[in-house]
Amino acid sequence: MSTSPKIKLTYFDIRGRAEVARLVLAAAKIPYEDIRIGFDQWPALKSSTPLGSVPVLEVDGQKFTQSVAIAAYLAKENGLYGSSALEQLAIDQVALAREDLTQAVGKFMSEKDEKKKAELEKTLKEEQEPKFLGFFNKLIKENPTKSGFVVGSKITLADLVVFETTQMLSEKEPQTLDKYPEIKALRTKVTGSDGIKQYLATRKPTPF
Amino acid sequence: MSTSPKIKLTYFDIRGRAEVARLVLAAAKIPYEDIRIGFDQWPALKSSTPLGSVPVLEVDGQKFTQSVAIAAYLAKENGLYGSSALEQLAIDQVALAREDLTQAVGKFMSEKDEKKKAELEKTLKEEQEPKFLGFFNKLIKENPTKSGFVVGSKITLADLVVFETTQMLSEKEPQTLDKYPEIKALRTKVTGSDGIKQYLATRKPTPF
Repeated sequence: MSTSPKIKLTYFDIRGRAEVARLVLAAAKIPYEDIRIGFDQWPALKSSTPLGSVPVLEVDGQKFTQSVAIAAYLAKENGLYGSSALEQLAIDQVALAREDLTQAVGKFMSEKDEKKKAELEKTLKEEQEPKFLGFFNKLIKENPTKSGFVVGSKITLADLVVFETTQMLSEKEPQTLDKYPEIKALRTKVTGSDGIKQYLATRKPTPF
Repeated sequence: MSTSPKIKLTYFDIRGRAEVARLVLAAAKIPYEDIRIGFDQWPALKSSTPLGSVPVLEVDGQKFTQSVAIAAYLAKENGLYGSSALEQLAIDQVALAREDLTQAVGKFMSEKDEKKKAELEKTLKEEQEPKFLGFFNKLIKENPTKSGFVVGSKITLADLVVFETTQMLSEKEPQTLDKYPEIKALRTKVTGSDGIKQYLATRKPTPF
């Protein structure tokens, strides 16, 4: 007899690099311990993490780091990771592309120098955002199953990644998403899907 | 009847972000088309890649990007990806941690300003390198199977990642690796393993 592992996810009280994992757990309706730490608590906790960073996933007490690896594991264990090795490659590709875009966004957001910040914003808006969102949109549009999902015929981690990647835009600059109709339609599908729908109805809003 | 897919890997003529995938293919003794492009050819090829970057893996003509996703796929298809979802999480964690270290190395190597470069080198040598190499060393040391490998009882993608991550150090600053005896021993195991041994004997040396 196998029992479900005890899952604990530790991160700050924002979406950030943990929200994709939380969405996977919500879509799979898996109960878990959702630890939200304050930024003031972080210095004392840092050394207890595998690489001095969060999110950290604990599975039956064993600790793991790296948000993309954590989300992939949870998706794999809960039927949200495609149905072939090639689909999984396509899903991983999307999750890692999001990392590249997230890094560009983070660099822009944390830049203090006004002139440099303006340059980073220009590159982000005119090059990086169109590149990555255009890529995601194209994957949905050219999905041979015509499912409206990013990979294959049913919801996977890739859809949750694209949903979370476009969350801030959908709140702050919804007109930007008009250029990506397949992503907009995907967001509607994800928002209404079982598990996610209930999670979003009670999720505490955070800016990012 | 299933036939092996036709594999083509496109990258520059350096190890860089393609070498882990090449090591996986070598360890698995999989024939593939190893396309090495010149930096002068790159501008003309860039727009034909999924996200304007290499490496690109083609599987029966279908193109994929993102080096970590590509290496994971090849490892999965060739028995180098562990034997459970938790082992795969541990392997992914190592591959992604290498990305973080590689980015820090790349930032240092490409910095033109002498003062900033010196600061980046100090952080790299005193903080990032010990953090990531210490983490890899600890994983090998605390591997419950005592196999001498990073994850589980046989060679996986994680070992090839750690091997490639420490390649430049082993050539340029071998004394640094004296602090990480488990990594040194792992390097010897990987170097002597079937497939890798033959590959390394004929590999053209490149600086990185």
